[in-house]
Amino acid sequence: MIPPRLKFTGKELKVLDQRLLPDRIKYLTARNAKETAAAIKDMALRGAPLIGCAAADGFALEMRRLKPASADELMLAAVRTADLLKAARPTAVALFYAADRMLETARAFAAANPGKFSPATRIKFLKLIEKEARLVTSEDEAACLAMGEFGARLLPRNCVIMTHCNAGALATMGIGTAVGVITAAHKKGKIKHAYSCETRPYLQGARLTIWELMREGVPSELLTDNMAAHIIKTCGVNAIVVGADRIASNGDTANKIGTYGLAVIAKHHKVPFYVAAPTPTIDMKAKDGDAIVIEERSSEEVTFVKGRRIAPKKVRVRHPAFDITPAGLITALITERGVIKPVSRAAVKNHLK
Amino acid sequence: MIPPRLKFTGKELKVLDQRLLPDRIKYLTARNAKETAAAIKDMALRGAPLIGCAAADGFALEMRRLKPASADELMLAAVRTADLLKAARPTAVALFYAADRMLETARAFAAANPGKFSPATRIKFLKLIEKEARLVTSEDEAACLAMGEFGARLLPRNCVIMTHCNAGALATMGIGTAVGVITAAHKKGKIKHAYSCETRPYLQGARLTIWELMREGVPSELLTDNMAAHIIKTCGVNAIVVGADRIASNGDTANKIGTYGLAVIAKHHKVPFYVAAPTPTIDMKAKDGDAIVIEERSSEEVTFVKGRRIAPKKVRVRHPAFDITPAGLITALITERGVIKPVSRAAVKNHLK
Repeated sequence: MIPPRLKFTGKELKVLDQRLLPDRIKYLTARNAKETAAAIKDMALRGAPLIGCAAADGFALEMRRLKPASADELMLAAVRTADLLKAARPTAVALFYAADRMLETARAFAAANPGKFSPATRIKFLKLIEKEARLVTSEDEAACLAMGEFGARLLPRNCVIMTHCNAGALATMGIGTAVGVITAAHKKGKIKHAYSCETRPYLQGARLTIWELMREGVPSELLTDNMAAHIIKTCGVNAIVVGADRIASNGDTANKIGTYGLAVIAKHHKVPFYVAAPTPTIDMKAKDGDAIVIEERSSEEVTFVKGRRIAPKKVRVRHPAFDITPAGLITALITERGVIKPVSRAAVKNHLK
Repeated sequence: MIPPRLKFTGKELKVLDQRLLPDRIKYLTARNAKETAAAIKDMALRGAPLIGCAAADGFALEMRRLKPASADELMLAAVRTADLLKAARPTAVALFYAADRMLETARAFAAANPGKFSPATRIKFLKLIEKEARLVTSEDEAACLAMGEFGARLLPRNCVIMTHCNAGALATMGIGTAVGVITAAHKKGKIKHAYSCETRPYLQGARLTIWELMREGVPSELLTDNMAAHIIKTCGVNAIVVGADRIASNGDTANKIGTYGLAVIAKHHKVPFYVAAPTPTIDMKAKDGDAIVIEERSSEEVTFVKGRRIAPKKVRVRHPAFDITPAGLITALITERGVIKPVSRAAVKNHLK
């Protein structure tokens, strides 16, 4: 079993510090939106769906801390809190989705309860907002299960599968998105072998995904990212599945750096390339991949591994944390509602109806 | 300037320990063939041409140590020494080329000087063998310069170039193969920017190539391997150049793991993909890439970075050190004799005439 990623008590949010995995299982505590945003920004927690769940929780914590006494106070607090959370990371749309959803819940409450709040109204608001945060989490759990089912059906028997980064239980509150597809298929006896790319620079594949696969008993091996093409060519890989941080309305997909290259390599070898992500990952406001902001993170995350320098001092480094895979390279999108195949603007729109 | 990789005194071979670069410049000493083979096997020195030069030196050291007293003793010693050196690593053909060349030199001497050797004959043999070793090195230096010239001519003005692993001065006794092309083009003012892929697991790109580029004043940035596709797509990369460990007679090329994936990505983006390697890298006995043995190295080289574990204990790991890039993905081969373009069995054969 994978340890709980988030433990929400109402008063605080315990966050499994994924930077220490798999060596240590340790939780840090966020008591408000600022501390939640810091945990997201510093990557103590990561993974688009999990970031969304944490943002909802952080929003609820902040409302409890501020205890708005009127509709005006509530709106001011809600807008500021949503903005603070949304500034934590720029690419994963689940963060915006969750923060905006909490904001809308607050806005609707304020509209229905104008003026000063009675003590009972204040309590009613906090209960409502906490209920909404719990709903974000439970919907994510259910979405993972559904994606696991839909995804597993797409895979052949004796499937040799590859994944990149960690779109597993650790990236969600459920069984995961891409890794959820693998473990669900494994439970049906369909997985012969799974390969996890280590995913430099943050090594989510080496630290998190392979650990999840080992814990779930999936026959698996770890690769460096640059081995993928050789392994796909020589080891009979017949499916690749990854998660997503944001999907544009035409199906272009932002996901962890390396995904695009893997999709190009998959196409060259005629291996199906699947993206598994819940529908809140789809950003209908983004016309295509060009509309998605790619976060550039610090050079130190590239030049240091576990505190040890691996490159010359003063070296110049690129560190885009994500890349864009064009819809044309994606065989199918797997969401909690089913499968989008082939991937097109019309098919995405139709899927969300 | 790049420190000397090998310093041959006749009595010993000082080997720049590249595992400590760029942090420390330290030499280890090989006094015989066994210690030379160990330095090759343990990757204190690496890079196909440099391995060849070291093998020739190691052969000469061993002959001086053994001082064969007859043609029969000489042949026994020479065959054993060549075998010992050739067992150090399986993929780089320069190793076989150099060991066999030294063996042939010894064989010719033995044939011309049958029976017991006089003291003068013994000295004559040692001088001959040391001269041959020096020739392997000086030919490599000259080949690098020629490849730099031929390669630089292929590149456009304002070239944005990418390379993988280290095919630089550190991989040769000269200016390098692929990196030699970049620095030669840089001296002609043709390089706008160079990207070095870090090259997991051994990080030759992060530790060696970017260090060489910085020392030579080439505007350059370091990438993780999985960023290559994104950078090629978004940063106007218009050439990729790599080295080679072995080239089959049809042009299929074995090079550091990750080369194949990079070639597939280059093709997708219609970016020319060049392989620079001296003609001893071409193995006419290998019909195609399938005939080339791919070395599988230890899992610890993947799971540990600078002594720190980065993956769970008991994890299963793949570690092919090389991959095969089919000739069809290679725009041109650059050797010290000129350019093979397009790459085909007939063109390779013709080139070596």
